[in-house]
Amino acid sequence: MAFCQSFVNEIYRHIGADTDVPAGDIGVGAREIGFIYGQYKRLTGLVDGTMTGKSISYGGSLVRREATGYGLVYFTEQMLSSLNTSFQGKRVVISGAGNVAIYAAEKAAQLGAKVLTFSDSNGYILDPDGVDLETIKHIKEKHRARISEYVKHRKGAEYFDKGVVWQVPCDVALPCATQNELNEDDAKTLIKNNCLAVAEGSNMSTTLEALSLFQKNNVLYGPGKAANAGGVSVSALEMAQNSARLYWTFEEVDKKLQSVMQNIYRQVSETAARYATKNDLVAGANIGGFVKVCESMLLQGII
Amino acid sequence: MAFCQSFVNEIYRHIGADTDVPAGDIGVGAREIGFIYGQYKRLTGLVDGTMTGKSISYGGSLVRREATGYGLVYFTEQMLSSLNTSFQGKRVVISGAGNVAIYAAEKAAQLGAKVLTFSDSNGYILDPDGVDLETIKHIKEKHRARISEYVKHRKGAEYFDKGVVWQVPCDVALPCATQNELNEDDAKTLIKNNCLAVAEGSNMSTTLEALSLFQKNNVLYGPGKAANAGGVSVSALEMAQNSARLYWTFEEVDKKLQSVMQNIYRQVSETAARYATKNDLVAGANIGGFVKVCESMLLQGII
Amino acid sequence: MAFCQSFVNEIYRHIGADTDVPAGDIGVGAREIGFIYGQYKRLTGLVDGTMTGKSISYGGSLVRREATGYGLVYFTEQMLSSLNTSFQGKRVVISGAGNVAIYAAEKAAQLGAKVLTFSDSNGYILDPDGVDLETIKHIKEKHRARISEYVKHRKGAEYFDKGVVWQVPCDVALPCATQNELNEDDAKTLIKNNCLAVAEGSNMSTTLEALSLFQKNNVLYGPGKAANAGGVSVSALEMAQNSARLYWTFEEVDKKLQSVMQNIYRQVSETAARYATKNDLVAGANIGGFVKVCESMLLQGII
Amino acid sequence: MAFCQSFVNEIYRHIGADTDVPAGDIGVGAREIGFIYGQYKRLTGLVDGTMTGKSISYGGSLVRREATGYGLVYFTEQMLSSLNTSFQGKRVVISGAGNVAIYAAEKAAQLGAKVLTFSDSNGYILDPDGVDLETIKHIKEKHRARISEYVKHRKGAEYFDKGVVWQVPCDVALPCATQNELNEDDAKTLIKNNCLAVAEGSNMSTTLEALSLFQKNNVLYGPGKAANAGGVSVSALEMAQNSARLYWTFEEVDKKLQSVMQNIYRQVSETAARYATKNDLVAGANIGGFVKVCESMLLQGII
Amino acid sequence: MAFCQSFVNEIYRHIGADTDVPAGDIGVGAREIGFIYGQYKRLTGLVDGTMTGKSISYGGSLVRREATGYGLVYFTEQMLSSLNTSFQGKRVVISGAGNVAIYAAEKAAQLGAKVLTFSDSNGYILDPDGVDLETIKHIKEKHRARISEYVKHRKGAEYFDKGVVWQVPCDVALPCATQNELNEDDAKTLIKNNCLAVAEGSNMSTTLEALSLFQKNNVLYGPGKAANAGGVSVSALEMAQNSARLYWTFEEVDKKLQSVMQNIYRQVSETAARYATKNDLVAGANIGGFVKVCESMLLQGII
Amino acid sequence: MAFCQSFVNEIYRHIGADTDVPAGDIGVGAREIGFIYGQYKRLTGLVDGTMTGKSISYGGSLVRREATGYGLVYFTEQMLSSLNTSFQGKRVVISGAGNVAIYAAEKAAQLGAKVLTFSDSNGYILDPDGVDLETIKHIKEKHRARISEYVKHRKGAEYFDKGVVWQVPCDVALPCATQNELNEDDAKTLIKNNCLAVAEGSNMSTTLEALSLFQKNNVLYGPGKAANAGGVSVSALEMAQNSARLYWTFEEVDKKLQSVMQNIYRQVSETAARYATKNDLVAGANIGGFVKVCESMLLQGII
Repeated sequence: MAFCQSFVNEIYRHIGADTDVPAGDIGVGAREIGFIYGQYKRLTGLVDGTMTGKSISYGGSLVRREATGYGLVYFTEQMLSSLNTSFQGKRVVISGAGNVAIYAAEKAAQLGAKVLTFSDSNGYILDPDGVDLETIKHIKEKHRARISEYVKHRKGAEYFDKGVVWQVPCDVALPCATQNELNEDDAKTLIKNNCLAVAEGSNMSTTLEALSLFQKNNVLYGPGKAANAGGVSVSALEMAQNSARLYWTFEEVDKKLQSVMQNIYRQVSETAARYATKNDLVAGANIGGFVKVCESMLLQGII
Repeated sequence: MAFCQSFVNEIYRHIGADTDVPAGDIGVGAREIGFIYGQYKRLTGLVDGTMTGKSISYGGSLVRREATGYGLVYFTEQMLSSLNTSFQGKRVVISGAGNVAIYAAEKAAQLGAKVLTFSDSNGYILDPDGVDLETIKHIKEKHRARISEYVKHRKGAEYFDKGVVWQVPCDVALPCATQNELNEDDAKTLIKNNCLAVAEGSNMSTTLEALSLFQKNNVLYGPGKAANAGGVSVSALEMAQNSARLYWTFEEVDKKLQSVMQNIYRQVSETAARYATKNDLVAGANIGGFVKVCESMLLQGII
Repeated sequence: MAFCQSFVNEIYRHIGADTDVPAGDIGVGAREIGFIYGQYKRLTGLVDGTMTGKSISYGGSLVRREATGYGLVYFTEQMLSSLNTSFQGKRVVISGAGNVAIYAAEKAAQLGAKVLTFSDSNGYILDPDGVDLETIKHIKEKHRARISEYVKHRKGAEYFDKGVVWQVPCDVALPCATQNELNEDDAKTLIKNNCLAVAEGSNMSTTLEALSLFQKNNVLYGPGKAANAGGVSVSALEMAQNSARLYWTFEEVDKKLQSVMQNIYRQVSETAARYATKNDLVAGANIGGFVKVCESMLLQGII
Repeated sequence: MAFCQSFVNEIYRHIGADTDVPAGDIGVGAREIGFIYGQYKRLTGLVDGTMTGKSISYGGSLVRREATGYGLVYFTEQMLSSLNTSFQGKRVVISGAGNVAIYAAEKAAQLGAKVLTFSDSNGYILDPDGVDLETIKHIKEKHRARISEYVKHRKGAEYFDKGVVWQVPCDVALPCATQNELNEDDAKTLIKNNCLAVAEGSNMSTTLEALSLFQKNNVLYGPGKAANAGGVSVSALEMAQNSARLYWTFEEVDKKLQSVMQNIYRQVSETAARYATKNDLVAGANIGGFVKVCESMLLQGII
Repeated sequence: MAFCQSFVNEIYRHIGADTDVPAGDIGVGAREIGFIYGQYKRLTGLVDGTMTGKSISYGGSLVRREATGYGLVYFTEQMLSSLNTSFQGKRVVISGAGNVAIYAAEKAAQLGAKVLTFSDSNGYILDPDGVDLETIKHIKEKHRARISEYVKHRKGAEYFDKGVVWQVPCDVALPCATQNELNEDDAKTLIKNNCLAVAEGSNMSTTLEALSLFQKNNVLYGPGKAANAGGVSVSALEMAQNSARLYWTFEEVDKKLQSVMQNIYRQVSETAARYATKNDLVAGANIGGFVKVCESMLLQGII
Repeated sequence: MAFCQSFVNEIYRHIGADTDVPAGDIGVGAREIGFIYGQYKRLTGLVDGTMTGKSISYGGSLVRREATGYGLVYFTEQMLSSLNTSFQGKRVVISGAGNVAIYAAEKAAQLGAKVLTFSDSNGYILDPDGVDLETIKHIKEKHRARISEYVKHRKGAEYFDKGVVWQVPCDVALPCATQNELNEDDAKTLIKNNCLAVAEGSNMSTTLEALSLFQKNNVLYGPGKAANAGGVSVSALEMAQNSARLYWTFEEVDKKLQSVMQNIYRQVSETAARYATKNDLVAGANIGGFVKVCESMLLQGII
């Protein structure tokens, strides 16, 4: 707390709701944001949206925990839509068992998919009937236990302490654990199993070799830069709520999140079609970001 | 005006739309708010939501006059709902004849209730067919006359210069006149008449003894701290409109006011159920307020 | 650019989202607004709604180009509505071929009218089947050519290098070219042809003599002060979007623009009815503006 | 007072000790400066040197009343010094009887001169023994009477209700009454009487024709722009005292005033020598001011 | 330190070198001023004179420790001067042994007086040859021991554990210990011993009865409000040094302190002479303060 | 100029007369300071001491060009004084021919020394009668020619295109050219020639080996950190003049510069005596700086 307060003593004059809005990141969670916000409020007297990731009790937004997972699925939904299909009835393989994985699974299930796997650093579970999310939440959010516990609660589920989830045949693969968790061999397996789409819930989940294989074999690929932007999008929606001095319901935030992710998909895919190959979402995301910044700089004059 | 301007000369640097937002109170009405706002605008150059209770012509909100009365009925509606009933067909006894009383009556009537009484410091009227609000508004808002005039306009209505409205058998009692206007004897009468719910439109309308009797006899009791929060809620909605640079229609403000009052009821009743007795809304309001402040302070760090 | 930046160096401390918000005007288009906004952002660090007319890419609003034309038609729609009729099936004569003319025609056509004419400084075209807007946009927005080109694309259309559009019999006349473009003789022609309503898309399109004739002959007349307020209204909607940190869709902005224009019409016509003659919208607009400023000044205290 | 306060309500954000420092002028005396300073202090909370001409009791400087008169004599002293002479034993003719005249006389007398005349709009007095300043102050500062009273108190003094003081033979002429008070005929008289130097205590005391004669006949001429800068110089010294949070004694301010006037003379005469004719102080003052502004602008970059 | 920093978090926006300048007082010494100044500097980025009582190493003034004692003697010097005498050869009795007592003694000795006594809460010492200050400083500043130690170092000195210093015959009495330390009996003794002047180094050293006796018997009396203003005067001089960005030498500060105290004496005695009795410095100090505030308020306009 | 202005656009909010005061350095001379100051003034409206190194015409200080050279000699004067001698009659060898060298020579000559040498990158001149400064200024400041020109103007002077000035026997050596210009061999020569004192006008003029030899052989050594602080000291004096809104004469600035350098010497030598060896000015300067910062940090509380 002393560190957070001292930090704010120095930066408080450089941040602001219309200037720069800090948010949490690795090592800066809800607790630290609270201390930072408190000191900022003390020093400036302002009750505004200068920080995001705030607790609901003093200005935060709903759908924060769900943001990245939901957003990932909304983005993937658009990818599937470009193939004239949807999540309905799809087999989905997810790695990881954190917030991203859990809420990606929740939203995918709501859209009619069957989620087959979860994993942690020890191994993975496979539930052919579709993973039961209440059980997962019970294990991970309440007991903070290992994923292997799952098989004690669900008949028909299996635990593997070897191998990776990508070996499970699927239509959609959502890496939600860590970087470089999906390599060339995994890509080959997924391609062989006719996987339709891969989208990154974790940052840079996929090695360059794997990515290259997906592109050559027309497996749709959603880069993290775009696909897991749900977290930062809900930060923007938190800022919007603070500006409007209103709280939106869970459904409202969720719906706006969906709309934001659809918008991102549209910009990325249109940019891909214009400057690179249609469906090359990696190029679309990179070029789109560059073009947006570049255009604004030119319009706003030489610095 | 000179006083208001001089006052602003001193406080203008301590207030602001994101810092502290003054509103009117006893002795500070629309006229004074106008002078205060004008001087604030002059000194800061800001056209923003730093004052509430502003006139519609320069940034105020609709539903201001109606706010407390409507809010009171919306809160009471939730209380009745917890008994699986509603205002539909209920007999409502109201004391007072000011804004709170008139607009509580208006909204109760819109929800299907029959309002039987109005009162002033001289006496009260009883209209067994349900009070005619046009007549009341004509008498009070236009002619600023005594409530006894009512019987000249409506057949079947009676005027009493002795006694209190609580003697009239009813399902819902809404004290909207002044503090301590409902005492132990009145409570006994209401209980005897099987009154279902009492909610405070005035601040601390009910003596401690009366309150105690209601609680012992399971008469639902809505404390003013929660039940008459409609006024300050519309101030918050005025701030929201100013922030958004939009004006909401009467219907929009009314609907949001209802939603705010429902939210307050939900928080109060859930807190009551958690920390005290279910339906003890007095405890719920007190504890709920304390918990909200306390939690935010802890989350935001030691001062 | 240097001029814009230097200008901002001096004014940046006098403007602000809640103080004064500059917008473009003659000689200050999207390019200059970009340079001004860029320098303002650089000096203050603020990313806010201090400028309107911004490009979409850094905070502008949709419906900017369409604003004045659409707004003009929405206002005229209300005028027709006061005669218990609508644009449906009406013959509309429009002068000019710029943004105002094109988008007035577009909206009028959407509301069921048949637009017969467009003009430029050389002459005018008449298309008895209703002007084809795609062709107009092709000529004016893409090729920036003369309006006479139109007859090369559309059979049945005629080009006149003499005379004015007001000679074409019509139900509604919308001068959208320049000031004083509709004189006494034109007014006599329109009256003779039983024109119902004239509304100014350009500023002061009509000479005082023409205006006088319209009033004597009960031709409804919408003064530019009110009728072409669509542009400044979309500036206000741009400010609202910036404040809310949200982007509205084309349909949302369009709908709010309609609502704003209806509101303006209502205030103008009510003021006319109260202080002057019903339907004297010139008096209504002038008196209404004065009353609004006057009332706010009185309410906000002596300066 | 209300006017002063309202004025400050608007300008307080544009002035400041390091920005712009207002001072009194015609119609804005010590009383108005007090009200302006009071309101400024109230609004900003600042106790600083933002206003000059303040009363001694809350931050003003000594030597304010004496400033212009003393300064005039200090400047003239330098002029005489360029002729290798001084005020010692000189006959000085002064017009006027206000602050400038009285304190020019006081300082000239201190430097050994004999002041022969004072005047008002009715006439002038001549005291061949040298004017007695105590008597003058008694008449003008205490009784606010006409100058003709002087001859009642002093034997040997004469009062003239016709003619002008310039007819009295003298070595130094100091016009301290009003503009254009010294014309071509007066100049001829002064030249004929071998007057050495003329310096303007009032603004533009001398007609262009008179000035031209002085220059042709080598009568030294001190233009008001430089010669009566004593008032504004003491404003600068008041600012310096405020900045240093110190009060200087009368002697200290007087000494610094002398030093400032010497400095001004030096700059003016050096500029004259460099760009025009040596001793052409009119050219020196005009060119010197221009060069100073010009040089600073070039050094500080294009606006 | 945490307390000081937290305190500054709240007040930093209300203080400033030109607004309000806090200084130490009971319980807020050099240590606390350091912490307060440090946090102020951190939060505002300003290195200025917003605090006084700072350490020399970061902006404090010399003569801080000596300020009250020296000032007391300078004031008393003026009192004696009004009797056409001076400290030269006077016998001075001082109570206390803190900073005020020690440095009053030092300055009195420099001016030629013989200081006879020092005291603490246990008793007092009497040194007929004049107290040796090196010994006193050695005991009090270095060893923080009791004053009774003195007699171990100096032959001829006596220690009394009963009675008070006022019993020692003297010309000047300077109470520098605590409030109400000089009562009616003490006054009678001093009067009997032909004491010329009493001046308060401590606040309200003298009881009302004693004061009354002094006034009746023409013993000059310097009230603490004026006589011990040396401390706050050096704060003002510290502010002046900070403003000028200069450090003055010990001699410069000492000389300016003398000048300030002479000024205070002059204002107090002139006010006494004008509004009360000459030499009634109590009345002079009270009335003088009131008049100064009153006059400034009137000059600066109604609030 | 565009670069300077753009730079100020970014930094103007981080600098200020009481916050951070930039000054020129390599590549940022009077011209750039002018542009920077101009833009700062434009953006903030402030006319204050936020920049040093300003031109005299808009707020700069006299003695700027002379500052480092004069300061070097004042520091060396103190060093000599610690040996109970002075510059009177000393032979001084100076390297370099820039501002530092020229004005060190000027001040040394004023104090009675004979300066024997000047140098540039081609060679050095030796004038056994003492260098003539008018000639040097003529060559370097007016014609910007090589130092070898000197011998054309002065009989008895010699030019050497080989070797270094340190070979010339001297009492005082002042390296004023560049870093590492005085090496081990040079030190040996100087020691052999009984040089009393060496002081750095350039930064780190002396190699570590040379320094070590000086210390072992009791040659007094003034490190640049202290000895050439004259430039930054005059910046501080410029700030003081700006704060006081006064201009000091050349003599005043020169005298204060001397006093500052004496103060620096005193602190350095006292620190040396306390923490290291007496006369080890290198240790004194390093430790003194550290102690000052350290002490202030401790006094001002933990960050």
